[in-house]
Amino acid sequence: MFSNRIDGLRPSPIRAILSVIDRPGMISFAGGLPATQTLPHWSGSILPETLQYGPSEGEPALRAAVSDRLRQLGIDAPAERVMILSGSQQGIDLVAKLFIDPGTPVAVECPTYLAALQVCRFYGARFIDLQTSEANQASFAYVVPTFSNPTGFCATTAERDALAQRCLETGTTLFEDDPYRDLAYDPVDRTPVATHMADGSWVYQGSFSKTYAPGLRLGFLAASANLFPPLVMLKQAVDLHSSRLSQSIVYDAITAADWTERLAGLVAFYRSRRDTFEAALGRHFADLAQWTTPKGGLFYWLRLHDRLDTRLLLDQAIVRGVAFMPGEEFYPNEPQLGTMRLNFSHANPEEADRGLRILADLIREQRP
Amino acid sequence: MFSNRIDGLRPSPIRAILSVIDRPGMISFAGGLPATQTLPHWSGSILPETLQYGPSEGEPALRAAVSDRLRQLGIDAPAERVMILSGSQQGIDLVAKLFIDPGTPVAVECPTYLAALQVCRFYGARFIDLQTSEANQASFAYVVPTFSNPTGFCATTAERDALAQRCLETGTTLFEDDPYRDLAYDPVDRTPVATHMADGSWVYQGSFSKTYAPGLRLGFLAASANLFPPLVMLKQAVDLHSSRLSQSIVYDAITAADWTERLAGLVAFYRSRRDTFEAALGRHFADLAQWTTPKGGLFYWLRLHDRLDTRLLLDQAIVRGVAFMPGEEFYPNEPQLGTMRLNFSHANPEEADRGLRILADLIREQRP
Repeated sequence: MFSNRIDGLRPSPIRAILSVIDRPGMISFAGGLPATQTLPHWSGSILPETLQYGPSEGEPALRAAVSDRLRQLGIDAPAERVMILSGSQQGIDLVAKLFIDPGTPVAVECPTYLAALQVCRFYGARFIDLQTSEANQASFAYVVPTFSNPTGFCATTAERDALAQRCLETGTTLFEDDPYRDLAYDPVDRTPVATHMADGSWVYQGSFSKTYAPGLRLGFLAASANLFPPLVMLKQAVDLHSSRLSQSIVYDAITAADWTERLAGLVAFYRSRRDTFEAALGRHFADLAQWTTPKGGLFYWLRLHDRLDTRLLLDQAIVRGVAFMPGEEFYPNEPQLGTMRLNFSHANPEEADRGLRILADLIREQRP
Repeated sequence: MFSNRIDGLRPSPIRAILSVIDRPGMISFAGGLPATQTLPHWSGSILPETLQYGPSEGEPALRAAVSDRLRQLGIDAPAERVMILSGSQQGIDLVAKLFIDPGTPVAVECPTYLAALQVCRFYGARFIDLQTSEANQASFAYVVPTFSNPTGFCATTAERDALAQRCLETGTTLFEDDPYRDLAYDPVDRTPVATHMADGSWVYQGSFSKTYAPGLRLGFLAASANLFPPLVMLKQAVDLHSSRLSQSIVYDAITAADWTERLAGLVAFYRSRRDTFEAALGRHFADLAQWTTPKGGLFYWLRLHDRLDTRLLLDQAIVRGVAFMPGEEFYPNEPQLGTMRLNFSHANPEEADRGLRILADLIREQRP
């Protein structure tokens, strides 16, 4: 089930010892821990423990808070099977490392998140389109069912049910990446596919980058009991644990009284940006491309009527002061030409209008 | 030279685009960046940029500060070849990933840092004792020449020169791990081996965990021009970048007027702990073990007169309330029995005396 390299993975003696040195009265000559009194003294609410080495799984309070949230969503995620990540990119690396040997089949949506493709390709994955029956042989299925990156699409209730059912029937591990779920602008079913996987093998992950602050590099994952222990061992090997200061700050933020209000404000802000972007797209791209209004997330996905290679378009766009992501990069195998991913959250309304006009002009100039 | 998986490593289009979107006036539809005005508002000196996504290589100011330090030491490390890590454990993972396929020969000291062994073993390394001529065939040599973990030994000037010379002559990459260099209690040559490697292939890394705070998870590496670009690509794939908040805090700390004073205080504190520990060892272990007083770092390395398997001893010690690291874990291949790594920085003098007495009693009871 796992990659060959996992055969060499053994519980670290450090981990075993760390689990006992917190016992009251234990004298530890084991770790390489700085003496607590030598740590910097900070004013404010930062506890000195935050500066010391910590558990690979993450801070217990934050794990519990994430667990509460995931259980409210219907996911079988007790705190013992929640791990804090140094950004959800790390979760992709850990899962890829756990499963992929050269040639291992991995099922993906086409197109899908390009950094997931890069990491899986790096470990030697062979990509299979999730829509094909061959995908039933995949080691795991990587999906972003809620406000996909890059397409912004949101899977329907029937599609979610069918995917879970298929993973359960074929014994395929579900790897659900869900960083955008809180950025929902219109009513839509966002039930995690993982809610149906209690009897199967699954990893579900999310991020604090979109709802709080990317610069802190924090995300989380929950996983079924067969996958959680090796994922923790892999996490320890790559960075021991995630920044405890970041974890402390995020814990305070998501358990604060104004967290719900913050999310509501964020959604209102981005909904407005989306609507403004939609209007600007209508002004400049009505005769050039097709798109579906995203009900959430951060991206528009454009399919140009002319199948230009947008990778070539990008160089010219940058010269004129506009950057975008060529859609071709998001395809695991053969790219579909004439696609573009446009982020609508970062540019202000004036920039959005101006940038889209520049892009549209450029595309018109390319016409045969 | 590199592992097979590196063949699939290509510069990310995200990176290429990130390098241009900071240009003044550039309109970016490229990233998935939150709008800056939606980021949390913090009081104090934390800049809002700190909360946004940042460069994979790390914050320019911190890279420059590290570069200054490394150049003062004599290492050929301009800021463009300095990368900030999420703890120096991450550097081990990145270098191992860059070089190791199943069977790749890696030269190591015996014993050496166990978490380096774990990570290299995981990627399939075949370990070769650095002291043997077979080590000349190694892909890279991983060394901790200054206050080794676990032994506390410090390589002599002649040993440092010889190691560099050998790496240059055989074309072996030097991977020098140097987390303890600032914790020097007695005068000793600490010249990095990497200072001799300007014409060779090398990685040098250090940590802020021992001199500032482990919980922030920050370290750094510098590398020769042939290795730096792929290491940055690997870094991006695993966590995009390290916490910008941690980087900002560490930058402020190491450039503050009192940094030198802080280091001096730290050294005085740990020197005192070492001296107290040495005295307690003399009281309890004089007839049980041999050791060399470490001139720096955090560890004593004990060689018991009775070659007990200290892994078995550990379980009994924990029952009596004392934890230590069995030395056997630090050997890449055949372990040497009867060795123990004892950290002297964490326990206070009373605990150190009591803990060593308990351990000594236990060892006496095991005697045939």
